Amino acid sequence: MRLSLQPSLDASAYRYTHALRTRFAETDAMGIIHHGAYPSYLEEARVALLRDAGHPYEVVRSGPDGVDFAVLELFVRYRRPLRFDEQVDVHVLVGGLTRTTFQVGYLLDVAGQARATAVTVHGAVGPTGRPSRMPAFLADLVEAG
Amino acid sequence: MRLSLQPSLDASAYRYTHALRTRFAETDAMGIIHHGAYPSYLEEARVALLRDAGHPYEVVRSGPDGVDFAVLELFVRYRRPLRFDEQVDVHVLVGGLTRTTFQVGYLLDVAGQARATAVTVHGAVGPTGRPSRMPAFLADLVEAG
Amino acid sequence: MRLSLQPSLDASAYRYTHALRTRFAETDAMGIIHHGAYPSYLEEARVALLRDAGHPYEVVRSGPDGVDFAVLELFVRYRRPLRFDEQVDVHVLVGGLTRTTFQVGYLLDVAGQARATAVTVHGAVGPTGRPSRMPAFLADLVEAG
Amino acid sequence: MRLSLQPSLDASAYRYTHALRTRFAETDAMGIIHHGAYPSYLEEARVALLRDAGHPYEVVRSGPDGVDFAVLELFVRYRRPLRFDEQVDVHVLVGGLTRTTFQVGYLLDVAGQARATAVTVHGAVGPTGRPSRMPAFLADLVEAG
Repeated sequence: MRLSLQPSLDASAYRYTHALRTRFAETDAMGIIHHGAYPSYLEEARVALLRDAGHPYEVVRSGPDGVDFAVLELFVRYRRPLRFDEQVDVHVLVGGLTRTTFQVGYLLDVAGQARATAVTVHGAVGPTGRPSRMPAFLADLVEAG
Repeated sequence: MRLSLQPSLDASAYRYTHALRTRFAETDAMGIIHHGAYPSYLEEARVALLRDAGHPYEVVRSGPDGVDFAVLELFVRYRRPLRFDEQVDVHVLVGGLTRTTFQVGYLLDVAGQARATAVTVHGAVGPTGRPSRMPAFLADLVEAG
Repeated sequence: MRLSLQPSLDASAYRYTHALRTRFAETDAMGIIHHGAYPSYLEEARVALLRDAGHPYEVVRSGPDGVDFAVLELFVRYRRPLRFDEQVDVHVLVGGLTRTTFQVGYLLDVAGQARATAVTVHGAVGPTGRPSRMPAFLADLVEAG
Repeated sequence: MRLSLQPSLDASAYRYTHALRTRFAETDAMGIIHHGAYPSYLEEARVALLRDAGHPYEVVRSGPDGVDFAVLELFVRYRRPLRFDEQVDVHVLVGGLTRTTFQVGYLLDVAGQARATAVTVHGAVGPTGRPSRMPAFLADLVEAG
């Protein structure tokens, strides 16, 4: 297990906040948002952070030097359920940068009430799926270790 | 973080194996199975294990004493990508039983090659979403601590 | 087949427009948005239209007289692919109201270029899943026949 | 609208039957399988039919002459809800072959009770997404027009 970030419950600890609204399609028969929907929320927030930082993921991925940020590890702690049509603030930061991986930490809250925290670990991979050099701009995004 | 199970890379360490085939809908633009599809694979294997053990989840959930096994934590380690139309063996075992939670460990392999390992932590909740007593049969399923 | 609405390719024919951004999780190995993601886009736009009209779906569904708008039929025509991270305008209108069903028409475009059109047919169902009376407010939403 | 197949309610009218089990992840807050899950069921059945006919979709897609069967139109009629953990028989046939498109018809039943019918219209596209010649083997699969 490489994941080491400790996602804070304090929203002000995060670099960027992405707002999204839960979908009815994401609910389940328990009447809450299915736990399997959260990885997409995390990804949407990562993509928004990259765009906000001037590195849209579509650009990062394209061209001969393009890389994908493959997900190597995923951890989610579900604290309180999310429900249909709630507006979720996904707070996000980049940390734990090594030569081959970086980590992203997340706090999901609704009107300031924590619902989940999460960490993903990523590696850069080239077009053929082989590990690739980490783009230099990532160092500028890192805030936490 | 409550998760403590260490999922073995040895398939023979698991109680039960559920076979599934990846769907094209689950692929992504990297040409592999999207990491967000794995929670559904894990869930499908849990449900199959319960059915095999004589406790179909639909029965566990129904009636006035019915409980849901809410997911409290999720950890996935992606070791090698899964691809479209691969047949995946999801090996699964129950462990880490406490008065209020239990854990499930998983090994996903294709023709014996490990692709991912995972752990989920669960709590029993009643119809209103409140924590509930753990069904007695869970103790019979536990193999690992 | 009950569906009869002819969704226009002219965005100005629609009552309401909901903007969304495609997710990487929704792409597939063809490098485009998977066709199975569109029903969620349509649903998200319906829910947004109801909210905009002063009838949030969570309110419509709640209480002893609450109803769900079950989907009875779905038709999508995929005209040009959607791609990752595109911002999609989902234009939407309500039509075809009968005593027991109504229809919703959709035009999905990106920067004015049509990508898909769609129609859904809905019936009102009560908490037990039985057909129910159509809420009176629906008549106010109807623009097309 | 190109779709013209009339999917029969008689299972014996179909060439091939694929069995699948609904997932908990596919349920929604109405307690039934979300309508947006059906396109994946149809796709899984198409892929199974191709494999059964000796033309695995992975093979059809690969190589310099590989083609994808893009979905051009989708129609689903939801007759009775599917529920969690039901075993669904997806009956499937190929029809409506033209020089550039073909259609697939579906009947979804559970223990012989019809739950849904559906039609998809497909075109062959090459690696760059451009329309391509229809593989010759498709003519062998056609049963209905």
